[in-house]
Amino acid sequence: MSSQIINPPPRLLMGPGPINADPRVLQAMSNQLIGQYDPVMTGYMNETMALYRQVFKTQNQWTLLVDGTARAGIEAVLVSILEPGDKVLIPVFGRFGHLLREICERAQAEIHTIEVEWGQVVDPEQVEQAIRKVRPKVFATVQGDTSTTMLQPLQEIGEICRRHEVLFYCDATASVVGNTLLVDEWHLDAVSVGLQKCLGGPSGSAPITLSDRYVAEVRKRQHVEAGIRTAQHQAGERPRILSNYFDVPMLLDYWGEERLNHHTEATTMLYGARECARLVVEEGVENCVSRHELHGRAMLQGVQGLGLQVFGDLKHKMNNVVGVYIPEGVNGEQVRQSMLLDFNIEIGTSFGPLHGKIWRIGTMGYNARKDAVLTTLSALEQVLRRAGYQAPAGGGVQAAFEVYERG
Amino acid sequence: MSSQIINPPPRLLMGPGPINADPRVLQAMSNQLIGQYDPVMTGYMNETMALYRQVFKTQNQWTLLVDGTARAGIEAVLVSILEPGDKVLIPVFGRFGHLLREICERAQAEIHTIEVEWGQVVDPEQVEQAIRKVRPKVFATVQGDTSTTMLQPLQEIGEICRRHEVLFYCDATASVVGNTLLVDEWHLDAVSVGLQKCLGGPSGSAPITLSDRYVAEVRKRQHVEAGIRTAQHQAGERPRILSNYFDVPMLLDYWGEERLNHHTEATTMLYGARECARLVVEEGVENCVSRHELHGRAMLQGVQGLGLQVFGDLKHKMNNVVGVYIPEGVNGEQVRQSMLLDFNIEIGTSFGPLHGKIWRIGTMGYNARKDAVLTTLSALEQVLRRAGYQAPAGGGVQAAFEVYERG
Repeated sequence: MSSQIINPPPRLLMGPGPINADPRVLQAMSNQLIGQYDPVMTGYMNETMALYRQVFKTQNQWTLLVDGTARAGIEAVLVSILEPGDKVLIPVFGRFGHLLREICERAQAEIHTIEVEWGQVVDPEQVEQAIRKVRPKVFATVQGDTSTTMLQPLQEIGEICRRHEVLFYCDATASVVGNTLLVDEWHLDAVSVGLQKCLGGPSGSAPITLSDRYVAEVRKRQHVEAGIRTAQHQAGERPRILSNYFDVPMLLDYWGEERLNHHTEATTMLYGARECARLVVEEGVENCVSRHELHGRAMLQGVQGLGLQVFGDLKHKMNNVVGVYIPEGVNGEQVRQSMLLDFNIEIGTSFGPLHGKIWRIGTMGYNARKDAVLTTLSALEQVLRRAGYQAPAGGGVQAAFEVYERG
Repeated sequence: MSSQIINPPPRLLMGPGPINADPRVLQAMSNQLIGQYDPVMTGYMNETMALYRQVFKTQNQWTLLVDGTARAGIEAVLVSILEPGDKVLIPVFGRFGHLLREICERAQAEIHTIEVEWGQVVDPEQVEQAIRKVRPKVFATVQGDTSTTMLQPLQEIGEICRRHEVLFYCDATASVVGNTLLVDEWHLDAVSVGLQKCLGGPSGSAPITLSDRYVAEVRKRQHVEAGIRTAQHQAGERPRILSNYFDVPMLLDYWGEERLNHHTEATTMLYGARECARLVVEEGVENCVSRHELHGRAMLQGVQGLGLQVFGDLKHKMNNVVGVYIPEGVNGEQVRQSMLLDFNIEIGTSFGPLHGKIWRIGTMGYNARKDAVLTTLSALEQVLRRAGYQAPAGGGVQAAFEVYERG
């Protein structure tokens, strides 16, 4: 088999993620490597920690990268804190609630869930009731679940968790910097994200932030590798974490001043993660969220202007993705194919109960831009017309323009 | 805190890895992203599988990437095959034997080791004796352990494992394409590597290859995520794998024709991993190994030409790294600092019992080049002289030239 030099087509990625990387992120990633204990490299690591503190709106010292995709960050946080038999409470309002449950099951935790219909979020009162009943060690949720486009409100739950001394973990991969996330103010003890949504980078690095409360708990499971252990390293009192790669105390000793060798840091991904955060900090986190709100609203009004119905409780829709019902008589996959292959624009399919019923259209990161929104709506109108759907001529683009003109 | 655009110094990385990435790999990684189910993307995934079959000298269908650093590949292979209580036999002849043991302990396996002094390898007869006694499910070893520079011979062990129906796993991160590795001919059932050594890429992607025997075993632990499960998906008969991220059957369903959603593939790392393999296949795997043998020999003769003593059993030294005793009266860390900060050349320190006793100097991947070897030896001579060591003038470079002239 012979393969050619890589030359991907110029897609505009308007699905639920991954989306196009910001060109500045790719430029950062094209820099040559340096050694993992080079003072310049450890300097970059410290800068990356400081930058993500700003992204996460936190003072947490322990703000760092897990080397893997977003779900690597989820697994690291959960497998390090949950000992076999520990109780965890999880609201399931979409696919990623199932994923949290699945990861916690494998950590041998005792699972309790709050099930919510897809398209809704969970009510804080329900959470407090369940916490009183279950008395979990950890409450684990996603903030934005792209499978349903819903954004779970977190502030009240944070207060509830703190009141009941429950550790509060949230995966904010799909929502971070596209929607407000105030880690310290909302009493979050652990948050994990990925780069491939509103942060405008490629999948493959998972920024996490951890409160001192979380860290104090996982430090009880501290364990230094035999190959590099010295007399000063004592084993923690609690059972060892089930994974070496995802052992958070080890990651802390690698990112901290001790610089104990663990994995070899994924330097190129770190260059990218650092640049993603630099872009957001330059823009300002609040401005970045406002930009997602604006372009998300333009896309929402646009698809409605095409006469399409949207999915879920709009009061709780994420800024950066919208679920659009496939109109009757239209072949959803043919529309996606024509968008992709004729217009080089990707929109998303969906999972589980929504499969075949809705498309998901994203406006995130580098692609939360006016031209990307207008181009997508314009193409969608043409493709829908050819698929037999009577789209009002110019109705999508016009509705989006109105949002931009009203501001 | 304000951070600057990334601008790493132009280091020549001559340690035990990571080393400089081949510029073609960085170019490949600077390409824009595409969606994870884009036909172009799944095409790249299939090409990557085919390319790594050539790198690994295997017909194994299941040859793919784990999204993480080299140790992510190790953990995926081991945690998927080892059920709690399963017996595993591990030779420990350096730091990475300890790491394998550590990972297997966390998988709750029953651990048996063969301990060998650092600087030696394990004798196949010892392995056969231990296998007869222990009757393990898995024999797990590293091929090249950079902590000692030793290369474990595998061929005879492969025959022994096959005869006793033991699954044979090897981590070849530090050795692959710098030393001969014949996956099928040597009866290896699972091999994992990383990009950051002789493959000339950045850390962050772990190519693995799996035999049908290995796959048949882990398929017994098959389990499809609740969020995407349908009636056709049946749970396997054996206990679920302890990790979701490292669940090999799930990775197979993602890389295979079923394309079941798991993680979001780390596209940029895949572009890089693909280009690493393309470079090796273009050069020819055997030619690539010969190049490492030549430049590794030039470096070995060079440091000896400087009057330095080398570490370990030279019959079993890896081609791509040499351990060099720090001469008496010389401050090893000062020499490394001067090499790094005055000459922009990185050489390695060492771990455990060798810490403070030897430097490790690598010649691998893009840096297995004549100019890199000569430049390093030339600088080392100057730095050693300033550190008070009486280096024979030109002795290192002259000895290396002799290797290149003799061929």
